[in-house]
Amino acid sequence: MQNITQKAGAPQAWIEHIEPPLAGSASGPLAGLRFAIKDNIDAFGWPTTAACKEFAYLPKAHASVVQKLLDSGATLVGKTNLDQFACGLNGTRSPYGAVPNAFNPDYVSGGSSAGSAYVVANGEVDFSLGTDTAGSGRVPAGLNNIVGIKPSKGLLSTRGVVPAAQSVDCVSIFARTVDVAARVLQAAMGPDVQDPYSRTLQLASQPFGKSFRFGVPSTLEFFGDTAAEAAFAQALERLTAMGGVAVSIDYTPLAQAAALLYESALVAERYAAIRPFFDAHENKVMEPVRSIIARGRDFSAADLCTAQAQLRAYGQQAAAMWGGIDVLLVPTAPTHYTIAAMLANPVVLNRNLGAYTNFVNLLDYAAISVPSSIRPDGLPFGITFIGPCGSDWQLAELGQRYHHASGMLQGALQLPLPAPEPIAGLADSGSRMKVAVVG
Amino acid sequence: MQNITQKAGAPQAWIEHIEPPLAGSASGPLAGLRFAIKDNIDAFGWPTTAACKEFAYLPKAHASVVQKLLDSGATLVGKTNLDQFACGLNGTRSPYGAVPNAFNPDYVSGGSSAGSAYVVANGEVDFSLGTDTAGSGRVPAGLNNIVGIKPSKGLLSTRGVVPAAQSVDCVSIFARTVDVAARVLQAAMGPDVQDPYSRTLQLASQPFGKSFRFGVPSTLEFFGDTAAEAAFAQALERLTAMGGVAVSIDYTPLAQAAALLYESALVAERYAAIRPFFDAHENKVMEPVRSIIARGRDFSAADLCTAQAQLRAYGQQAAAMWGGIDVLLVPTAPTHYTIAAMLANPVVLNRNLGAYTNFVNLLDYAAISVPSSIRPDGLPFGITFIGPCGSDWQLAELGQRYHHASGMLQGALQLPLPAPEPIAGLADSGSRMKVAVVG
Repeated sequence: MQNITQKAGAPQAWIEHIEPPLAGSASGPLAGLRFAIKDNIDAFGWPTTAACKEFAYLPKAHASVVQKLLDSGATLVGKTNLDQFACGLNGTRSPYGAVPNAFNPDYVSGGSSAGSAYVVANGEVDFSLGTDTAGSGRVPAGLNNIVGIKPSKGLLSTRGVVPAAQSVDCVSIFARTVDVAARVLQAAMGPDVQDPYSRTLQLASQPFGKSFRFGVPSTLEFFGDTAAEAAFAQALERLTAMGGVAVSIDYTPLAQAAALLYESALVAERYAAIRPFFDAHENKVMEPVRSIIARGRDFSAADLCTAQAQLRAYGQQAAAMWGGIDVLLVPTAPTHYTIAAMLANPVVLNRNLGAYTNFVNLLDYAAISVPSSIRPDGLPFGITFIGPCGSDWQLAELGQRYHHASGMLQGALQLPLPAPEPIAGLADSGSRMKVAVVG
Repeated sequence: MQNITQKAGAPQAWIEHIEPPLAGSASGPLAGLRFAIKDNIDAFGWPTTAACKEFAYLPKAHASVVQKLLDSGATLVGKTNLDQFACGLNGTRSPYGAVPNAFNPDYVSGGSSAGSAYVVANGEVDFSLGTDTAGSGRVPAGLNNIVGIKPSKGLLSTRGVVPAAQSVDCVSIFARTVDVAARVLQAAMGPDVQDPYSRTLQLASQPFGKSFRFGVPSTLEFFGDTAAEAAFAQALERLTAMGGVAVSIDYTPLAQAAALLYESALVAERYAAIRPFFDAHENKVMEPVRSIIARGRDFSAADLCTAQAQLRAYGQQAAAMWGGIDVLLVPTAPTHYTIAAMLANPVVLNRNLGAYTNFVNLLDYAAISVPSSIRPDGLPFGITFIGPCGSDWQLAELGQRYHHASGMLQGALQLPLPAPEPIAGLADSGSRMKVAVVG
């Protein structure tokens, strides 16, 4: 473990510093690591705000995942800013201020796990927890040159986490290296009977081969950002050089599933998540979060049945792609936006940021966002590997291979990557390490 | 295969005889077997009524499962009566008449797959298809001394089946022996990308051991029927003699899950299933089906989110039981009712019939109903084995062991059971057959 010089960053990234830091067990696989948690995750003794002061409550216990991380030796140093109620992908929707990009403060950090991504990129902590419902654990990773693991649904308990859309919420992990993120995943995962959507999952333990097939959407949208387009083309070349074989896949059912998230009765789950508070204090919720959640009231239960069946139908169509590919490759986000531009057009530009993330949880896939390059304008470009439920370790191994092949520095720091480490949970460490060296 | 003398039965059991019968492939694992399908399942060339003449439509193709059975050599002879829109567990809710019990025409057949159970018990066909959402494939099996397999959800395609509550609907199988039912399951199962809720499932292939642990609800309700209570006690003794060890399990979370089916927003799925027809022709739907479905309109999408999360929470609590048992044992139905009693009190008595079935599909379990005894009043008593998703073959094997241990005759016929046959899909046929002989 390298010693990172802790440096001050944007104060907006934090909602609360925990002073003194809350030290975990003296020993354990995460001993020596400092972490932060998104402020929709409970830490006993500190309020959980979800970036809404009027909603804040004092939790009676740590969230299950926080307890597991403390038990594994990590030290909790604070709670981070987010798009209010985790509703957003850009990091500006908070009364605690807009979180800037760690590479250029004129640009958005991405969200909703905005602060959690920023403080990892900036070296203030070794890792952090976010949450990811529609991309909140991936978009800010991509925009800040760090790793974001969006685990299989139900792998990490969401007990003690403010729900956004409970049936698809995931706790997510940010770190500057895949190794650290994977070790956190190993420590944090596990079934929890007190989380209704927790599951006992068998994770695949064989890494993808040296030669692997990766899907690329047949249609790609960068919203005019030629730097992002070029960066994605470079990623394709790198993956091909690593032994990957690109396979064009039909993006239609994935895009159709994504559209259901906000354009169908599925949005009602966001209203159900905070219904009593929202009914009593709707005027305390900031726009456009308020209007998005309020739309959840407009749908009937029958509408939701229809939307859920439609989602399953798209899922059946989409699943056919797994017959022809090992993993799906997408840009993590299609472009960067300035904070000013986002505030001027908050709904449309936010939706654009989710072009490659929205469908993943809905269709029960796992994902990892990995740094890919720094564009000519100095902003990061990240890619995301997506696999079926249970592919978490496989994605981490491929992500680590790719990250090391990229030659990127860590986050926004002038630090090279350390040597790759075996990925916890994978069976065949011998061949994996060899492949990692090749990469 | 024994030759059954076909005998005429209650005309109310049929909605349509298919004349001449629709012969399947000349050869195949089901060659020589005649079958009927519940009239909410499509057969090309004949109307699907769902027991509502105004709803009837002419399907453009066979239902997927019907096509598979024809391809496997079976011959389709007709379409059977049901509780309208598969909404009911008693068999009286049909404009085609109340289906009588095959053992005493004063009593209900059970439903909603009323006719499909009757014609199997009566020897008019070798097997039949029903559907099962809340017990429709088990209650009439139990009341008519036949076998009812309620497969794991998503194992049999529901394409070409009128939905009742689409996310929990299962096509079910009736036969007079477990062997025939299991062979039909083998032929009919398999994923179908055109069914949104179809799944690729790995079924357990090791039978339960000679010594097995079976759960028994800590509280049992027979609604004053002492004959049923005595019959269930006899079943416990028989299972114990077979090598089973009874384990008391807390029925609370199962009962709570069951209550959600009609008393929460989950009921909206029944309205969503036929929404355009129901909105236009509500007055064509018979009571109490109409009022049950109409209640589905009263719930919001957020209500449904809450109910679905609550269901998952009960599921987490209930799942703990699988750590201590191999299989859960329940009476298939707690009692028998006369047709007159049912018509006089149709909602309450119908609900009573589902006391041991309602929760099964909601919690993603598989089940098989097996004949157990004939009570002193001449009415049958059946038991149901319930296991986790994917336990279908294990349940069939145990069901066959139990059925043969019972010494029962086939359905309402004066025919002994044939020798037990290996259960398709099970790995260890040597030890299994030995166990069957022991049983």
